[in-house]
Amino acid sequence: MESQAEITFLGTGTSIGVPVIGCDCAVCTSDDPKNKRLRSSIHVATPEVSLVVDTGPDFRQQCLREGIRHLDAALFTHAHSDHIMGFDDLRRFTVRNDEQLEIYANAECLDRLHAAFHYIFNGENRYHGYLKIVPHPIHGPFAVGDLTITPLPVTHGKVETMGFLFARGETRLFAYIPDAKVVSEEAKALLHGIDLLLLDGLQPEPHWTHLSIDEAVALAGELAAGCTWLTHFSCRVDYKTIAPTLPDNVFLAWDGLRLQC
Amino acid sequence: MESQAEITFLGTGTSIGVPVIGCDCAVCTSDDPKNKRLRSSIHVATPEVSLVVDTGPDFRQQCLREGIRHLDAALFTHAHSDHIMGFDDLRRFTVRNDEQLEIYANAECLDRLHAAFHYIFNGENRYHGYLKIVPHPIHGPFAVGDLTITPLPVTHGKVETMGFLFARGETRLFAYIPDAKVVSEEAKALLHGIDLLLLDGLQPEPHWTHLSIDEAVALAGELAAGCTWLTHFSCRVDYKTIAPTLPDNVFLAWDGLRLQC
Repeated sequence: MESQAEITFLGTGTSIGVPVIGCDCAVCTSDDPKNKRLRSSIHVATPEVSLVVDTGPDFRQQCLREGIRHLDAALFTHAHSDHIMGFDDLRRFTVRNDEQLEIYANAECLDRLHAAFHYIFNGENRYHGYLKIVPHPIHGPFAVGDLTITPLPVTHGKVETMGFLFARGETRLFAYIPDAKVVSEEAKALLHGIDLLLLDGLQPEPHWTHLSIDEAVALAGELAAGCTWLTHFSCRVDYKTIAPTLPDNVFLAWDGLRLQC
Repeated sequence: MESQAEITFLGTGTSIGVPVIGCDCAVCTSDDPKNKRLRSSIHVATPEVSLVVDTGPDFRQQCLREGIRHLDAALFTHAHSDHIMGFDDLRRFTVRNDEQLEIYANAECLDRLHAAFHYIFNGENRYHGYLKIVPHPIHGPFAVGDLTITPLPVTHGKVETMGFLFARGETRLFAYIPDAKVVSEEAKALLHGIDLLLLDGLQPEPHWTHLSIDEAVALAGELAAGCTWLTHFSCRVDYKTIAPTLPDNVFLAWDGLRLQC
């Protein structure tokens, strides 16, 4: 079967990235490029569609690194700063006068985007060069080109958060859940037996708003996922130390990694 | 006379940086490191004080590049996204429980910061790792350690904007005005004859919210500034082409440039 989608990890880091400002730990001072992590985000490309999930402060840098020149949509998992503060840099994807970017987020996240970027949402700046959007509150599955995207409710601190299940026709392609402590039973039912799962695995130690690596590995097993790539890492994750300890079908992602599915 | 302050240009780019996403112009595809521009910001260090002016989305990256590990204050020129959206990354400068960062901005900018980063301003997140701030609305000159800083009213589109004049004791050190179309008569009086001026010089062509290079050169002459470094450049500024055309006391800044004064 030929590839139906290409996923690029734009960033695999937690809210403050790796290296962390002012941190002298072995990972933050490491030369290993797999220990350099911008804020978590993915790009998804199919034969018909190019979209991004989340636009943290590193979004411009990530687009330049990966040569992203066209987007049909931007999806948001939740309203934390490390996932939304690069929103204005989407402006480069609506430079032609007739272009508008489709924005998909839950109501709370749209409200936060509106509060932070009021000049984009109030429709006053319509001239060349400004970001022009069509906001879509997410209430259930939605289509972007040839993709059907189903929101996956998860628990992640106090902010309403979701992952996304991507399908093309009847085929489940993969799911992306970068920020979660608990994945809902509703989401688990949708994910059971999925071939490819991209999942929060913050660090070896437990954390109150994120899955630890052990918790993520256990969840991947419970879901009988074919292959799981962990993401959203803190500087407690040294690639070379942790990667060899994982089960055969669980891996650590890194910035710039591309997967076909 | 020994140096009283060191200025580092954290970024010298306009709102979308250089290279620009999706742009194939000669500057955006140039290998010259002086044509690579993060969003405009400076760091200022004196024997007593370390502060930053503006925290755009590149702020984390800029701190890592320049090894900034301590800040006493963050000043804001205005509320545009390219100057404020890295605000959350200041959290690494208040990691100790007793630390708070002094924030100086005009009322409009504080309101925008509050709207975008409500969880920092509402005082609910006081635990380790979150940004703890003391906001100061700017109404006139203020002191940060051994520096006296005077706001310089300027016109820059629709948003209330200022530059800053930095002095130590009776000595004017330098002024920084990254975003201006018109510098007020009040500001001109404060700046006349200043030794070192860091000034908006967006591009060769006129622009309705920024000084062009010719306009900036003319203003530097009118102010009888000793030495002027232009900043906040678009991709219409090729360093090697434009730099040689400037008067002997006017220069193009670049990311990472350090000046002593």
